[in-house]
Amino acid sequence: MQTLLLDPEAVEEAAEMPAVVDAVEEAFAADARDDVQMPAKSYIDLPEYNGDFRSMPAYMDAGDWDAAAVKWVNVHPDNPEDHDLPTVMGTVVYSDPETAFPLALLDGTTITRERTGAAAAVATDYLAVEDARTMGIVGAGVQSYTQLEAVATVRPIKEVVVADRDDERVAEFVEAFDDRFDVRGGSIEEAGQCDVLSTVTPVEEPIVHSVGERTHVNAIGADAAGKHEIADEILLDATLVIDDYEQCTHSGEINVPWSAGVLGDDDLHAELGEIVVGEKPGRTAETGVTVFDSTGLATQDVAASHVVYEYAEEHGVGEPVSLVDTDVL
Amino acid sequence: MQTLLLDPEAVEEAAEMPAVVDAVEEAFAADARDDVQMPAKSYIDLPEYNGDFRSMPAYMDAGDWDAAAVKWVNVHPDNPEDHDLPTVMGTVVYSDPETAFPLALLDGTTITRERTGAAAAVATDYLAVEDARTMGIVGAGVQSYTQLEAVATVRPIKEVVVADRDDERVAEFVEAFDDRFDVRGGSIEEAGQCDVLSTVTPVEEPIVHSVGERTHVNAIGADAAGKHEIADEILLDATLVIDDYEQCTHSGEINVPWSAGVLGDDDLHAELGEIVVGEKPGRTAETGVTVFDSTGLATQDVAASHVVYEYAEEHGVGEPVSLVDTDVL
Repeated sequence: MQTLLLDPEAVEEAAEMPAVVDAVEEAFAADARDDVQMPAKSYIDLPEYNGDFRSMPAYMDAGDWDAAAVKWVNVHPDNPEDHDLPTVMGTVVYSDPETAFPLALLDGTTITRERTGAAAAVATDYLAVEDARTMGIVGAGVQSYTQLEAVATVRPIKEVVVADRDDERVAEFVEAFDDRFDVRGGSIEEAGQCDVLSTVTPVEEPIVHSVGERTHVNAIGADAAGKHEIADEILLDATLVIDDYEQCTHSGEINVPWSAGVLGDDDLHAELGEIVVGEKPGRTAETGVTVFDSTGLATQDVAASHVVYEYAEEHGVGEPVSLVDTDVL
Repeated sequence: MQTLLLDPEAVEEAAEMPAVVDAVEEAFAADARDDVQMPAKSYIDLPEYNGDFRSMPAYMDAGDWDAAAVKWVNVHPDNPEDHDLPTVMGTVVYSDPETAFPLALLDGTTITRERTGAAAAVATDYLAVEDARTMGIVGAGVQSYTQLEAVATVRPIKEVVVADRDDERVAEFVEAFDDRFDVRGGSIEEAGQCDVLSTVTPVEEPIVHSVGERTHVNAIGADAAGKHEIADEILLDATLVIDDYEQCTHSGEINVPWSAGVLGDDDLHAELGEIVVGEKPGRTAETGVTVFDSTGLATQDVAASHVVYEYAEEHGVGEPVSLVDTDVL
């Protein structure tokens, strides 16, 4: 038996977004049904390098398939400047739950981008207006591309407004998508007026202060205590949906107003999984602004890795390597 | 930048045992100095497959080098019979702590065997009689080989007695080593009379009921609550050294008498790290039987992976692969 080595190019080729969105939706459903095992992330903090490692193991049972994996991922903010390396890198070991054979070693950085886009798409599918045609993106960095790609699989997006202080990034984003969308650079205010808004910035203080009356917001950027992108007034008025209670209250978009006591349990509408399985409603005729607080779950990595592995297996993507000596029992 | 893929053959080639023993000794010392980060193992239990996964992340700072890794490892006892696969398989992602770049993907099964042998060697070095010339091995399975290889780097072992119910295994073990040692099959009793004894079996009830007056025992096999290899009377009389308090009392050799209240804190001489750094004495002229309860620490995997990676880098072992897209910052 061999293990598939899937580098960034292979993962991108094998990560067909509609299938990733479906699998991530199944991950949310499995979570709500308690058909997952997801131990808390383990942290290794290395203040001497201004960085940390996180170990994210998980198992999910979707009913007609199940899957297990661990993602080993880091945050080293000095990497780009000091080492010409990405701030965040990830590696996934994807295993057969029945035997634990390591089926694939995957570039976890690409997996993270794909599943984060897919999670936003699942939220958008349940929370945005049905005929959403406009999408705003705040922050044109590496995570922004899959936001558009994924959301466009669940809504008929035609127009896109992308806001970033860095004109070059805006130009790159526009060039990447202008064959498929009417896409242009614009202000944060313009982006906020779209039917769907995804915020994917590392800011600590809110930069989105107004959105449309029925805008759905995917709040992606906040990933640590003290960080938020959306003004408290918007959160307080919105239907708030989170991906995971512990993670969101600790380090998601809501963590700052939560710690300040501005937001509490009564302000939370649901975990997204509860909406996916029908325990809680998604958008109704009365719903105004919705905000999805996305912190990222290990089960999403498992789901995305499953899709990538299945596709790669079937289409001969990736390099088979002999990682396990199966002669030694 | 590239990542080194190190398969079982490559790991074995690069795992020079004296260097692995040294690095594992440094891991014990770092642990005693509190220069490690080792979050508790995360478990994913899959009773439907009679198996589990364990995620073992760790960081250690040896002073002149430091290293970080995660091992993703399983225990699926039905694998050999049902799937022609090993019960235990492991995969290690070994990363540069400064940048988190994944330096290597390693066969963790071989790493586990190497570091488990090395841990026994470190214990033997501090606890066995200086002129130990005889070694007994109980259980001639996959873990037994590195016991002899490692212990022979710290003591002048000449004669080896190996005990196993399976004659074929005994013959294989003898054949593997008879060019270097006077090695023969024998009873558990004979093995127990040697200067050093390593027990590496999966038994649940004790099978070692007598040892020599100054024998040092490496108790390796017990790896779950309810399992032990050594009779309580031996443990009660011995100088007991453990690798980790939480793990040993929960699932190591001492866990059964511990749970029964037969053994308690007062019966424990030291954690091995305390002996390595000189906080507690090793063997003295008065010491009789010593027992090292080895459960295996994530820092040992990190230490062994460090040795393997450094050797592989220097000697061109392994296959360089492009796992990280370093163009995307």
